[in-house]
Amino acid sequence: MTGPLIAVQVEDDLLPLWQSVFSQEMPGAHLLGFDGDVGGADAAVVWAPPPAALHDMPRLRFVMSRGAGVDGLVEGLPPDAVLLRMREPGIAARMAEFVVLSVLHLHRGWQSLHHRQTSGEWRGDMPSLPAAERRVGIMGLGALGTAAAERLAPFGFPLSGWSRSPKALPGIETYHGEAGLEGFLPRCDILICLLPLTPETQDLIDAELLAKLPAGAMLVNAGRGGHLVEPDLLAALESGHVAGAVLDVTRTEPLPAGHGFWQHPKITLTQHGAAVQGRDEEARAAACVLRAAFAGKDLPHRVEPGRGY
Amino acid sequence: MTGPLIAVQVEDDLLPLWQSVFSQEMPGAHLLGFDGDVGGADAAVVWAPPPAALHDMPRLRFVMSRGAGVDGLVEGLPPDAVLLRMREPGIAARMAEFVVLSVLHLHRGWQSLHHRQTSGEWRGDMPSLPAAERRVGIMGLGALGTAAAERLAPFGFPLSGWSRSPKALPGIETYHGEAGLEGFLPRCDILICLLPLTPETQDLIDAELLAKLPAGAMLVNAGRGGHLVEPDLLAALESGHVAGAVLDVTRTEPLPAGHGFWQHPKITLTQHGAAVQGRDEEARAAACVLRAAFAGKDLPHRVEPGRGY
Repeated sequence: MTGPLIAVQVEDDLLPLWQSVFSQEMPGAHLLGFDGDVGGADAAVVWAPPPAALHDMPRLRFVMSRGAGVDGLVEGLPPDAVLLRMREPGIAARMAEFVVLSVLHLHRGWQSLHHRQTSGEWRGDMPSLPAAERRVGIMGLGALGTAAAERLAPFGFPLSGWSRSPKALPGIETYHGEAGLEGFLPRCDILICLLPLTPETQDLIDAELLAKLPAGAMLVNAGRGGHLVEPDLLAALESGHVAGAVLDVTRTEPLPAGHGFWQHPKITLTQHGAAVQGRDEEARAAACVLRAAFAGKDLPHRVEPGRGY
Repeated sequence: MTGPLIAVQVEDDLLPLWQSVFSQEMPGAHLLGFDGDVGGADAAVVWAPPPAALHDMPRLRFVMSRGAGVDGLVEGLPPDAVLLRMREPGIAARMAEFVVLSVLHLHRGWQSLHHRQTSGEWRGDMPSLPAAERRVGIMGLGALGTAAAERLAPFGFPLSGWSRSPKALPGIETYHGEAGLEGFLPRCDILICLLPLTPETQDLIDAELLAKLPAGAMLVNAGRGGHLVEPDLLAALESGHVAGAVLDVTRTEPLPAGHGFWQHPKITLTQHGAAVQGRDEEARAAACVLRAAFAGKDLPHRVEPGRGY
């Protein structure tokens, strides 16, 4: 064997596709599924939550997440391994599509379209607010938040953004840190969460935060289910203070049967599909990152352990 | 009475709002509803279809449509009256929102979201095509089509356009005339109709046109119901050649009970709401156009009778 051994946590029927893509993009690499003989693996590609099997791979130099988020991976990491995440233009582009689609869906009242159509109720006149009167706020101003803001700006929504540390983005009013939330939240007629999940952002969207949004505000959560205290959202929808939500992620996935989100007319569930790449695209992106990693290149995909994203 | 008498065809409860807006924007003008004493009206604001009452207003100098389309108005016009249409940035901006929302809705498979949610079926993995592999074609390259193209371009959809006469737009492959359809249609994975309704475009979207689209193509009709031969769309959806449609307009509005579009899982009905302005915005826009018209200004809103739009 000439190249590195890479253990990949993918669905069984996808393994041949990944092997084929890696044979083109990273010749010499040897790919095995997690049920193969991977004790000597040099790298692992994983899907959250991290498999306990990592502990039996003492030689791991790189652990790569198949998603943009790496929450839960930081803790389980072998001490000498470098954690890498997907950070491909394809993910940011899809997330930007998702955010614009979700914002326009809420902005234009499409949450009630299906009900109106199936009930045979025709309402020819549905004036909508001009975009200039619908303020949109983005929590998380990394690669995903920035791409989303760029796609939203041409519509004329007044944009603001919030992040952990200070950031300046053209055309966006930015806020940061705990104190910045006070100024940020009252400006969010539509609030978008694109944050990484860290101990600081866990449970951030709770009753207290929702109460600081303007009356009738709407929510898009494309971060993690752990950002949102789900009963608090249900209560805010019930009271009418929050008028609607598009949720890509939930506390437990798949969402358990009987959960209050399933049949809620003001919740649109998109089932963690916001930024799913095509199967061969994903394999190709992973191969490119790992090829660069093994070649010793400096990587924007490297996760800073102390920061957690 | 110092200013012109204007007959406005608006819902009764809107008349006071229109009168209030005109008193600010066009002082001196006198507004009455169509059931008032409007035989001496100098201008009329109408909503298609045109009221027969226009024939009893011999002094009409201007007839203004409340919508962007003026089909059906050209024929019923008093001989000396000039036909004006709404052509406000607010309409183009809303139409661009609608087009992007419809395109992303189809592109990202959201037509099946509601069914999946209400049936409690969780599918965590829905890879979507990259935008670069979803070709979008726009029929109608006037103010609305141009605005829509500008908003679609940043997503990376390969764009093409078709119009009656040759047009050049940056970043769009353009085609024109009957012959141009042959090159245009096979490039439309999503076809958007923003055409005016004229004798030439009536029934344009029929079985023959749909057959020239790529297999699995999707349709957005934000033009007029008269553009689409509805049974031909139903047949193309049935065969699978067309995979979905967002229809803002239908042949008969309101859509009759029992019509095959109501319960069709691959049709999203938006009930002629694509570009509906706010009530005061609409009145304000009408007042601005009529003020300019009575002041003898050159108007982009003027409809060319021979062309029909």
